[in-house]
Amino acid sequence: MTRRIITRENVMRTELELETIRSNLIRQEETIIFSLIERSQFGRNEIIYRQGGIIIPGSEYSFMMHLLHETEKIHARVRRYTAPDEHPFTDGIPAPYLPARDDEWPIRKTDININSTILDTYISRIIPLICEKDDDGNYGSSAVNDIGALQALSKRIHYGKYVAESKYQKDPSGYEPLIKNNDKDGIMERLTDSAVERRLLDRVKLKASTYGQEPDAVNPTYKIRPEVIQEIYSDIIIPLTKEVEYLYLLERI
Amino acid sequence: MTRRIITRENVMRTELELETIRSNLIRQEETIIFSLIERSQFGRNEIIYRQGGIIIPGSEYSFMMHLLHETEKIHARVRRYTAPDEHPFTDGIPAPYLPARDDEWPIRKTDININSTILDTYISRIIPLICEKDDDGNYGSSAVNDIGALQALSKRIHYGKYVAESKYQKDPSGYEPLIKNNDKDGIMERLTDSAVERRLLDRVKLKASTYGQEPDAVNPTYKIRPEVIQEIYSDIIIPLTKEVEYLYLLERI
Repeated sequence: MTRRIITRENVMRTELELETIRSNLIRQEETIIFSLIERSQFGRNEIIYRQGGIIIPGSEYSFMMHLLHETEKIHARVRRYTAPDEHPFTDGIPAPYLPARDDEWPIRKTDININSTILDTYISRIIPLICEKDDDGNYGSSAVNDIGALQALSKRIHYGKYVAESKYQKDPSGYEPLIKNNDKDGIMERLTDSAVERRLLDRVKLKASTYGQEPDAVNPTYKIRPEVIQEIYSDIIIPLTKEVEYLYLLERI
Repeated sequence: MTRRIITRENVMRTELELETIRSNLIRQEETIIFSLIERSQFGRNEIIYRQGGIIIPGSEYSFMMHLLHETEKIHARVRRYTAPDEHPFTDGIPAPYLPARDDEWPIRKTDININSTILDTYISRIIPLICEKDDDGNYGSSAVNDIGALQALSKRIHYGKYVAESKYQKDPSGYEPLIKNNDKDGIMERLTDSAVERRLLDRVKLKASTYGQEPDAVNPTYKIRPEVIQEIYSDIIIPLTKEVEYLYLLERI
Protein backbone atom coordinates (compact mmCIF):
# COMPACT_ATOMS: atom_id res chain seq x y z
CA MET A 1 0.00 0.00 0.00
CA THR A 2 1.43 3.31 -1.03
CA ARG A 3 1.03 6.16 1.35
CA ARG A 4 1.10 9.68 0.06
CA ILE A 5 3.03 12.02 2.29
CA ILE A 6 0.90 15.09 2.98
CA THR A 7 2.96 18.14 2.16
CA ARG A 8 1.74 21.50 0.93
CA GLU A 9 3.13 20.63 -2.47
CA ASN A 10 1.19 17.37 -2.56
CA VAL A 11 -2.03 19.09 -1.51
CA MET A 12 -1.53 21.59 -4.31
CA ARG A 13 -0.79 18.84 -6.77
CA THR A 14 -3.93 16.94 -5.67
CA GLU A 15 -6.08 20.02 -6.20
CA LEU A 16 -4.93 20.09 -9.80
CA GLU A 17 -5.40 16.40 -10.52
CA LEU A 18 -8.06 15.87 -13.16
CA GLU A 19 -9.90 13.47 -10.85
CA THR A 20 -10.19 16.14 -8.14
CA ILE A 21 -11.25 18.77 -10.65
CA ARG A 22 -13.79 16.42 -12.18
CA SER A 23 -15.39 15.59 -8.83
CA ASN A 24 -15.49 19.28 -7.89
CA LEU A 25 -17.21 20.16 -11.15
CA ILE A 26 -19.71 17.33 -10.72
CA ARG A 27 -20.48 18.47 -7.19
CA GLN A 28 -21.03 22.02 -8.38
CA GLU A 29 -23.51 20.81 -11.01
CA GLU A 30 -25.99 19.95 -8.31
CA THR A 31 -25.64 23.30 -6.64
CA ILE A 32 -26.24 25.03 -9.95
CA ILE A 33 -29.21 22.84 -10.95
CA PHE A 34 -30.77 23.10 -7.47
CA SER A 35 -30.39 26.87 -7.45
CA LEU A 36 -31.91 27.29 -10.93
CA ILE A 37 -34.86 25.09 -9.93
CA GLU A 38 -35.30 27.16 -6.79
CA ARG A 39 -35.28 30.41 -8.74
CA SER A 40 -37.68 29.06 -11.37
CA GLN A 41 -40.58 28.87 -8.92
CA PHE A 42 -40.84 32.68 -8.95
CA GLY A 43 -41.70 35.08 -11.74
CA ARG A 44 -39.12 36.85 -13.89
CA ASN A 45 -39.77 40.04 -11.92
CA GLU A 46 -37.79 42.16 -14.32
CA ILE A 47 -38.28 45.21 -12.08
CA ILE A 48 -35.73 43.86 -9.56
CA TYR A 49 -32.95 44.07 -12.17
CA ARG A 50 -33.75 47.58 -13.36
CA GLN A 51 -31.93 50.51 -11.85
CA GLY A 52 -34.60 52.73 -10.30
CA GLY A 53 -37.22 49.97 -10.76
CA ILE A 54 -37.50 49.74 -6.99
CA ILE A 55 -36.09 52.77 -5.23
CA ILE A 56 -33.51 51.85 -2.58
CA PRO A 57 -32.81 54.87 -0.36
CA GLY A 58 -29.15 55.84 -0.61
CA SER A 59 -28.29 53.29 -3.30
CA GLU A 60 -27.80 53.57 -7.06
CA TYR A 61 -28.21 49.84 -7.51
CA SER A 62 -31.16 47.87 -8.77
CA PHE A 63 -33.01 45.94 -6.05
CA MET A 64 -31.23 42.65 -6.78
CA MET A 65 -27.80 44.25 -7.13
CA HIS A 66 -28.30 46.10 -3.87
CA LEU A 67 -29.04 42.82 -2.09
CA LEU A 68 -26.09 41.19 -3.83
CA HIS A 69 -23.76 44.00 -2.82
CA GLU A 70 -24.91 43.93 0.81
CA THR A 71 -24.48 40.14 0.85
CA GLU A 72 -21.00 40.38 -0.67
CA LYS A 73 -20.01 42.92 1.99
CA ILE A 74 -20.91 40.42 4.71
CA HIS A 75 -19.18 37.54 2.95
CA ALA A 76 -16.08 39.65 2.22
CA ARG A 77 -15.62 40.35 5.93
CA VAL A 78 -15.54 36.62 6.63
CA ARG A 79 -12.90 36.12 3.95
CA ARG A 80 -14.93 34.60 1.12
CA TYR A 81 -13.13 36.50 -1.62
CA THR A 82 -9.63 35.58 -0.53
CA ALA A 83 -10.30 32.02 -1.77
CA PRO A 84 -8.89 31.41 -5.26
CA ASP A 85 -12.26 30.23 -6.64
CA GLU A 86 -14.44 33.06 -5.26
CA HIS A 87 -14.97 36.35 -7.08
CA PRO A 88 -17.20 39.26 -6.08
CA PHE A 89 -19.78 40.77 -8.45
CA THR A 90 -19.70 44.24 -6.89
CA ASP A 91 -17.01 46.79 -6.05
CA GLY A 92 -16.31 48.53 -2.79
CA ILE A 93 -16.44 45.49 -0.55
CA PRO A 94 -14.60 45.67 2.78
CA ALA A 95 -11.44 43.86 3.88
CA PRO A 96 -11.86 40.65 5.89
CA TYR A 97 -11.71 40.82 9.67
CA LEU A 98 -10.71 37.19 9.79
CA PRO A 99 -6.94 36.99 9.40
CA ALA A 100 -5.90 36.17 5.83
CA ARG A 101 -5.00 32.54 5.17
CA ASP A 102 -1.46 32.43 3.91
CA ASP A 103 -1.91 29.20 1.99
CA GLU A 104 -0.07 29.04 -1.25
CA TRP A 105 -2.43 28.86 -4.20
CA PRO A 106 -2.40 25.92 -6.59
CA ILE A 107 -3.07 28.41 -9.41
CA ARG A 108 -1.49 31.74 -10.36
CA LYS A 109 -2.96 34.87 -8.82
CA THR A 110 -4.64 36.90 -11.53
CA ASP A 111 -7.23 39.67 -11.67
CA ILE A 112 -9.42 37.71 -14.08
CA ASN A 113 -13.04 38.17 -13.06
CA ILE A 114 -15.76 37.82 -15.71
CA ASN A 115 -18.66 38.28 -13.29
CA SER A 116 -20.02 41.27 -15.18
CA THR A 117 -20.51 39.02 -18.23
CA ILE A 118 -22.00 36.28 -16.03
CA LEU A 119 -24.41 38.78 -14.50
CA ASP A 120 -25.57 40.19 -17.86
CA THR A 121 -25.99 36.70 -19.30
CA TYR A 122 -27.89 35.51 -16.24
CA ILE A 123 -30.39 38.35 -16.35
CA SER A 124 -30.84 38.55 -20.11
CA ARG A 125 -30.72 34.86 -21.07
CA ILE A 126 -31.03 32.49 -18.11
CA ILE A 127 -33.92 34.15 -16.25
CA PRO A 128 -36.19 34.24 -19.34
CA LEU A 129 -35.35 30.55 -19.97
CA ILE A 130 -36.18 29.27 -16.50
CA CYS A 131 -39.01 31.50 -15.22
CA GLU A 132 -42.49 30.99 -16.64
CA LYS A 133 -44.43 33.65 -14.81
CA ASP A 134 -43.90 37.32 -15.49
CA ASP A 135 -44.21 39.53 -12.40
CA ASP A 136 -45.56 37.75 -9.33
CA GLY A 137 -44.47 40.25 -6.67
CA ASN A 138 -42.00 37.85 -5.01
CA TYR A 139 -39.14 40.33 -5.30
CA GLY A 140 -37.24 39.43 -2.16
CA SER A 141 -37.39 35.67 -2.74
CA SER A 142 -36.38 36.09 -6.37
CA ALA A 143 -33.37 38.24 -5.49
CA VAL A 144 -32.23 35.94 -2.67
CA ASN A 145 -32.36 32.99 -5.05
CA ASP A 146 -30.60 35.00 -7.77
CA ILE A 147 -27.71 35.55 -5.38
CA GLY A 148 -27.36 31.82 -4.71
CA ALA A 149 -27.52 31.00 -8.41
CA LEU A 150 -25.07 33.73 -9.43
CA GLN A 151 -22.56 32.69 -6.78
CA ALA A 152 -22.78 29.05 -7.90
CA LEU A 153 -22.37 29.98 -11.58
CA SER A 154 -19.46 32.31 -10.85
CA LYS A 155 -17.63 29.70 -8.81
CA ARG A 156 -18.07 27.05 -11.48
CA ILE A 157 -17.04 29.30 -14.36
CA HIS A 158 -13.96 30.72 -12.59
CA TYR A 159 -12.98 27.18 -11.67
CA GLY A 160 -11.76 27.27 -15.27
CA LYS A 161 -8.55 28.66 -13.78
CA TYR A 162 -7.91 25.30 -12.13
CA VAL A 163 -8.85 23.45 -15.29
CA ALA A 164 -6.45 25.57 -17.36
CA GLU A 165 -3.58 25.25 -14.88
CA SER A 166 -4.03 21.49 -14.80
CA LYS A 167 -4.16 21.17 -18.59
CA TYR A 168 -1.18 23.47 -18.98
CA GLN A 169 0.96 21.52 -16.52
CA LYS A 170 0.26 18.31 -18.45
CA ASP A 171 1.21 19.84 -21.79
CA PRO A 172 3.31 23.02 -21.45
CA SER A 173 5.09 22.61 -24.78
CA GLY A 174 1.75 22.24 -26.56
CA TYR A 175 0.32 25.44 -25.09
CA GLU A 176 3.35 27.74 -24.98
CA PRO A 177 3.65 28.57 -28.69
CA LEU A 178 -0.13 29.07 -29.00
CA ILE A 179 -0.15 31.41 -26.00
CA LYS A 180 2.88 33.34 -27.24
CA ASN A 181 1.12 33.94 -30.58
CA ASN A 182 -2.17 34.72 -28.80
CA ASP A 183 -3.73 32.09 -31.06
CA LYS A 184 -7.17 32.03 -29.48
CA ASP A 185 -8.62 29.49 -31.90
CA GLY A 186 -5.65 27.19 -31.39
CA ILE A 187 -5.85 27.51 -27.61
CA MET A 188 -9.61 26.90 -27.58
CA GLU A 189 -9.19 23.84 -29.77
CA ARG A 190 -6.49 22.44 -27.53
CA LEU A 191 -8.61 23.06 -24.41
CA THR A 192 -11.64 21.30 -25.90
CA ASP A 193 -12.32 17.63 -25.28
CA SER A 194 -15.57 16.95 -27.14
CA ALA A 195 -16.07 13.51 -25.59
CA VAL A 196 -15.82 14.97 -22.07
CA GLU A 197 -18.23 17.77 -22.96
CA ARG A 198 -20.73 15.29 -24.41
CA ARG A 199 -20.60 13.20 -21.22
CA LEU A 200 -21.03 16.32 -19.10
CA LEU A 201 -24.10 17.41 -21.09
CA ASP A 202 -25.63 13.93 -20.83
CA ARG A 203 -25.02 13.90 -17.09
CA VAL A 204 -26.47 17.37 -16.60
CA LYS A 205 -29.61 16.41 -18.51
CA LEU A 206 -30.01 13.28 -16.43
CA LYS A 207 -29.58 15.22 -13.19
CA ALA A 208 -32.02 17.89 -14.33
CA SER A 209 -34.56 15.14 -15.12
CA THR A 210 -34.05 13.56 -11.72
CA TYR A 211 -34.08 16.67 -9.59
CA GLY A 212 -36.49 18.74 -11.63
CA GLN A 213 -39.69 16.77 -11.16
CA GLU A 214 -41.88 15.48 -8.37
CA PRO A 215 -40.67 11.89 -7.98
CA ASP A 216 -44.11 10.55 -6.96
CA ALA A 217 -46.28 12.66 -9.25
CA VAL A 218 -48.81 10.77 -11.35
CA ASN A 219 -48.20 13.02 -14.35
CA PRO A 220 -44.74 14.37 -13.65
CA THR A 221 -44.13 17.86 -14.94
CA TYR A 222 -40.67 19.35 -14.89
CA LYS A 223 -39.97 22.48 -12.93
CA ILE A 224 -37.43 23.29 -15.62
CA ARG A 225 -37.26 21.14 -18.73
CA PRO A 226 -34.01 19.12 -18.72
CA GLU A 227 -33.22 20.40 -22.21
CA VAL A 228 -33.20 23.95 -20.87
CA ILE A 229 -30.65 23.11 -18.19
CA GLN A 230 -28.59 21.30 -20.81
CA GLU A 231 -28.79 24.35 -23.09
CA ILE A 232 -27.66 26.65 -20.26
CA TYR A 233 -24.62 24.41 -19.85
CA SER A 234 -23.79 24.04 -23.53
CA ASP A 235 -24.44 27.63 -24.61
CA ILE A 236 -23.45 29.59 -21.52
CA ILE A 237 -21.59 27.76 -18.75
CA ILE A 238 -19.14 25.75 -20.88
CA PRO A 239 -18.22 28.65 -23.22
CA LEU A 240 -17.74 31.07 -20.31
CA THR A 241 -15.61 28.53 -18.45
CA LYS A 242 -13.43 28.16 -21.53
CA GLU A 243 -13.18 31.93 -21.80
CA VAL A 244 -11.75 31.95 -18.26
CA GLU A 245 -9.36 29.13 -19.20
CA TYR A 246 -8.18 31.15 -22.19
CA LEU A 247 -7.73 34.39 -20.21
CA TYR A 248 -5.86 32.47 -17.53
CA LEU A 249 -3.47 30.89 -20.00
CA LEU A 250 -2.68 34.30 -21.51
CA GLU A 251 -1.55 35.47 -18.08
CA ARG A 252 0.02 32.11 -17.24
CA ILE A 253 3.34 32.64 -18.94
CA MET B 1 -67.29 26.55 -16.62
CA THR B 2 -67.34 28.27 -13.28
CA ARG B 3 -65.25 31.32 -12.91
CA ARG B 4 -64.04 32.34 -9.52
CA ILE B 5 -64.28 36.06 -8.98
CA ILE B 6 -60.97 37.34 -7.67
CA THR B 7 -61.62 39.30 -4.52
CA ARG B 8 -59.34 39.75 -1.55
CA GLU B 9 -61.62 37.43 0.39
CA ASN B 10 -61.33 34.72 -2.27
CA VAL B 11 -57.54 35.05 -2.40
CA MET B 12 -57.41 34.64 1.37
CA ARG B 13 -59.73 31.68 1.22
CA THR B 14 -57.58 30.07 -1.49
CA GLU B 15 -54.47 30.47 0.63
CA LEU B 16 -56.17 28.44 3.33
CA GLU B 17 -57.53 25.68 1.11
CA LEU B 18 -55.95 22.35 1.97
CA GLU B 19 -54.92 21.87 -1.66
CA THR B 20 -52.95 25.15 -1.65
CA ILE B 21 -51.37 24.36 1.71
CA ARG B 22 -50.48 20.87 0.56
CA SER B 23 -48.77 22.10 -2.59
CA ASN B 24 -46.88 24.77 -0.62
CA LEU B 25 -45.65 22.18 1.87
CA ILE B 26 -44.60 19.83 -0.93
CA ARG B 27 -42.70 22.64 -2.66
CA GLN B 28 -40.94 23.51 0.57
CA GLU B 29 -39.82 19.89 0.98
CA GLU B 30 -37.48 20.27 -1.94
CA THR B 31 -35.98 23.47 -0.61
CA ILE B 32 -35.37 21.79 2.73
CA ILE B 33 -33.92 18.58 1.25
CA PHE B 34 -31.72 20.52 -1.22
CA SER B 35 -30.42 22.78 1.53
CA LEU B 36 -29.61 19.87 3.87
CA ILE B 37 -27.77 18.07 1.05
CA GLU B 38 -25.84 21.27 0.31
CA ARG B 39 -24.85 21.69 3.96
CA SER B 40 -23.85 18.02 4.28
CA GLN B 41 -20.91 18.39 1.91
CA PHE B 42 -19.03 20.36 4.60
CA GLY B 43 -17.79 19.33 8.01
CA ARG B 44 -19.72 19.89 11.25
CA ASN B 45 -17.35 22.77 12.05
CA GLU B 46 -18.66 23.08 15.58
CA ILE B 47 -16.45 26.14 16.14
CA ILE B 48 -18.76 28.30 14.01
CA TYR B 49 -21.64 27.76 16.45
CA ARG B 50 -19.65 28.49 19.63
CA GLN B 51 -19.67 31.98 21.06
CA GLY B 52 -16.06 33.12 21.05
CA GLY B 53 -15.06 30.16 18.87
CA ILE B 54 -14.13 32.59 16.11
CA ILE B 55 -13.71 36.13 17.37
CA ILE B 56 -15.81 38.63 15.46
CA PRO B 57 -14.67 42.17 16.26
CA GLY B 58 -17.51 44.12 17.85
CA SER B 59 -19.91 41.18 18.00
CA GLU B 60 -20.98 38.86 20.81
CA TYR B 61 -22.35 36.34 18.38
CA SER B 62 -20.87 33.06 17.23
CA PHE B 63 -19.54 33.13 13.68
CA MET B 64 -22.67 31.56 12.17
CA MET B 65 -25.07 33.68 14.23
CA HIS B 66 -23.17 36.80 13.25
CA LEU B 67 -23.59 35.95 9.57
CA LEU B 68 -27.25 35.10 10.16
CA HIS B 69 -27.84 38.40 11.95
CA GLU B 70 -26.15 40.42 9.22
CA THR B 71 -28.16 38.55 6.58
CA GLU B 72 -31.41 39.13 8.47
CA LYS B 73 -30.65 42.86 8.70
CA ILE B 74 -30.41 43.01 4.90
CA HIS B 75 -33.53 40.93 4.38
CA ALA B 76 -35.48 42.93 6.98
CA ARG B 77 -34.82 46.14 5.09
CA VAL B 78 -36.39 44.63 1.98
CA ARG B 79 -39.46 43.59 3.97
CA ARG B 80 -38.90 39.87 4.37
CA TYR B 81 -40.21 39.72 7.93
CA THR B 82 -43.46 41.53 7.24
CA ALA B 83 -44.68 38.40 5.39
CA PRO B 84 -46.88 36.18 7.58
CA ASP B 85 -44.70 33.09 7.01
CA GLU B 86 -41.29 34.68 7.65
CA HIS B 87 -39.76 34.98 11.12
CA PRO B 88 -36.33 36.32 12.07
CA PHE B 89 -33.88 34.34 14.23
CA THR B 90 -32.13 37.39 15.67
CA ASP B 91 -33.20 40.57 17.46
CA GLY B 92 -32.41 44.15 16.64
CA ILE B 93 -33.15 44.00 12.94
CA PRO B 94 -34.04 47.28 11.21
CA ALA B 95 -37.38 48.43 9.83
CA PRO B 96 -38.01 47.92 6.10
CA TYR B 97 -37.31 50.76 3.73
CA LEU B 98 -39.75 49.30 1.25
CA PRO B 99 -43.25 50.55 2.12
CA ALA B 100 -45.21 48.01 4.14
CA ARG B 101 -47.73 45.95 2.17
CA ASP B 102 -51.16 46.53 3.64
CA ASP B 103 -52.52 43.19 2.50
CA GLU B 104 -54.87 41.59 4.94
CA TRP B 105 -53.46 38.35 6.31
CA PRO B 106 -55.24 35.04 5.83
CA ILE B 107 -54.14 34.10 9.37
CA ARG B 108 -54.27 35.97 12.69
CA LYS B 109 -51.30 38.16 13.60
CA THR B 110 -49.49 36.63 16.54
CA ASP B 111 -46.03 36.92 18.09
CA ILE B 112 -45.46 33.17 17.89
CA ASN B 113 -41.86 32.56 16.81
CA ILE B 114 -40.17 29.30 17.79
CA ASN B 115 -36.94 30.01 15.93
CA SER B 116 -34.81 29.72 19.06
CA THR B 117 -35.99 26.10 19.40
CA ILE B 118 -35.42 25.50 15.69
CA LEU B 119 -31.91 26.92 15.96
CA ASP B 120 -30.96 24.79 18.99
CA THR B 121 -32.39 21.66 17.39
CA TYR B 122 -30.63 22.35 14.11
CA ILE B 123 -27.21 22.76 15.71
CA SER B 124 -27.49 19.99 18.28
CA ARG B 125 -29.39 17.34 16.32
CA ILE B 126 -29.56 18.00 12.58
CA ILE B 127 -25.93 18.99 11.95
CA PRO B 128 -24.51 15.84 13.64
CA LEU B 129 -26.99 13.73 11.60
CA ILE B 130 -26.12 15.14 8.19
CA CYS B 131 -22.39 16.03 8.35
CA GLU B 132 -19.86 13.22 8.25
CA LYS B 133 -16.64 15.15 8.53
CA ASP B 134 -15.64 16.92 11.70
CA ASP B 135 -13.77 20.20 11.15
CA ASP B 136 -12.76 20.83 7.53
CA GLY B 137 -12.11 24.57 7.76
CA ASN B 138 -14.97 25.51 5.42
CA TYR B 139 -16.46 27.91 7.95
CA GLY B 140 -17.87 30.49 5.57
CA SER B 141 -19.51 27.93 3.24
CA SER B 142 -20.94 26.01 6.19
CA ALA B 143 -22.47 29.13 7.73
CA VAL B 144 -23.89 30.38 4.42
CA ASN B 145 -25.53 26.99 3.89
CA ASP B 146 -26.76 26.93 7.49
CA ILE B 147 -28.59 30.20 6.86
CA GLY B 148 -30.37 28.77 3.81
CA ALA B 149 -31.33 25.61 5.70
CA LEU B 150 -32.50 27.47 8.81
CA GLN B 151 -34.63 29.87 6.79
CA ALA B 152 -36.23 26.96 4.90
CA LEU B 153 -36.93 25.04 8.12
CA SER B 154 -38.33 28.11 9.87
CA LYS B 155 -40.66 28.92 7.00
CA ARG B 156 -41.96 25.37 6.82
CA ILE B 157 -42.48 25.01 10.55
CA HIS B 158 -44.19 28.39 10.99
CA TYR B 159 -46.41 27.52 8.05
CA GLY B 160 -48.18 25.55 10.78
CA LYS B 161 -50.09 28.77 11.40
CA TYR B 162 -51.77 28.38 8.01
CA VAL B 163 -52.40 24.69 8.63
CA ALA B 164 -53.98 25.43 12.01
CA GLU B 165 -56.16 28.26 10.69
CA SER B 166 -57.37 26.05 7.86
CA LYS B 167 -58.16 23.13 10.17
CA TYR B 168 -59.86 25.42 12.66
CA GLN B 169 -62.08 27.03 10.03
CA LYS B 170 -63.25 23.58 8.91
CA ASP B 171 -64.08 22.45 12.44
CA PRO B 172 -64.50 25.36 14.89
CA SER B 173 -66.90 23.54 17.19
CA GLY B 174 -64.47 20.61 17.46
CA TYR B 175 -61.53 22.82 18.47
CA GLU B 176 -63.19 25.49 20.63
CA PRO B 177 -63.84 23.43 23.78
CA LEU B 178 -60.35 21.84 23.59
CA ILE B 179 -58.71 25.26 23.24
CA LYS B 180 -60.80 26.77 26.06
CA ASN B 181 -59.66 23.96 28.37
CA ASN B 182 -56.08 24.23 27.10
CA ASP B 183 -56.30 20.49 26.42
CA LYS B 184 -52.98 20.06 24.64
CA ASP B 185 -53.30 16.31 24.15
CA GLY B 186 -56.80 16.71 22.78
CA ILE B 187 -55.72 19.48 20.41
CA MET B 188 -52.69 17.52 19.23
CA GLU B 189 -54.81 14.46 18.60
CA ARG B 190 -57.37 16.48 16.62
CA LEU B 191 -54.60 18.10 14.56
CA THR B 192 -53.01 14.76 13.70
CA ASP B 193 -53.87 12.88 10.54
CA SER B 194 -51.69 9.77 10.64
CA ALA B 195 -52.43 8.76 7.06
CA VAL B 196 -51.32 12.18 5.79
CA GLU B 197 -48.16 12.01 7.91
CA ARG B 198 -47.34 8.54 6.61
CA ARG B 199 -47.72 9.71 3.01
CA LEU B 200 -45.56 12.75 3.72
CA LEU B 201 -42.81 10.60 5.23
CA ASP B 202 -42.92 8.20 2.26
CA ARG B 203 -42.72 11.10 -0.15
CA VAL B 204 -39.84 12.75 1.70
CA LYS B 205 -37.89 9.49 1.68
CA LEU B 206 -38.48 9.06 -2.04
CA LYS B 207 -37.36 12.63 -2.75
CA ALA B 208 -34.29 12.23 -0.57
CA SER B 209 -33.41 9.05 -2.50
CA THR B 210 -33.87 10.81 -5.81
CA TYR B 211 -32.05 14.03 -5.03
CA GLY B 212 -29.44 12.66 -2.67
CA GLN B 213 -27.39 10.51 -5.03
CA GLU B 214 -25.48 10.87 -8.26
CA PRO B 215 -28.02 9.67 -10.84
CA ASP B 216 -25.41 8.17 -13.15
CA ALA B 217 -23.03 6.75 -10.57
CA VAL B 218 -22.04 3.11 -11.02
CA ASN B 219 -22.18 2.49 -7.28
CA PRO B 220 -24.49 5.24 -6.07
CA THR B 221 -23.78 6.51 -2.60
CA TYR B 222 -26.16 8.86 -0.87
CA LYS B 223 -25.01 12.30 0.18
CA ILE B 224 -27.43 11.93 3.07
CA ARG B 225 -29.14 8.60 3.67
CA PRO B 226 -32.88 8.94 2.86
CA GLU B 227 -33.72 7.48 6.28
CA VAL B 228 -31.92 10.40 7.91
CA ILE B 229 -33.99 12.97 6.03
CA GLN B 230 -37.11 10.99 6.92
CA GLU B 231 -36.07 10.96 10.57
CA ILE B 232 -35.49 14.73 10.54
CA TYR B 233 -39.04 15.11 9.26
CA SER B 234 -40.68 12.65 11.65
CA ASP B 235 -38.78 13.58 14.80
CA ILE B 236 -38.15 17.29 14.31
CA ILE B 237 -40.04 19.06 11.52
CA ILE B 238 -43.49 17.51 12.00
CA PRO B 239 -43.50 17.83 15.83
CA LEU B 240 -42.28 21.44 15.69
CA THR B 241 -44.89 22.31 13.04
CA LYS B 242 -47.59 20.87 15.29
CA GLU B 243 -46.21 22.85 18.20
CA VAL B 244 -46.73 26.01 16.12
CA GLU B 245 -50.25 24.82 15.21
CA TYR B 246 -51.03 24.32 18.90
CA LEU B 247 -49.62 27.70 19.96
CA TYR B 248 -51.54 29.38 17.17
CA LEU B 249 -54.84 27.80 18.18
CA LEU B 250 -54.36 28.93 21.78
CA GLU B 251 -54.14 32.51 20.52
CA ARG B 252 -56.82 31.96 17.87
CA ILE B 253 -59.86 32.47 20.07
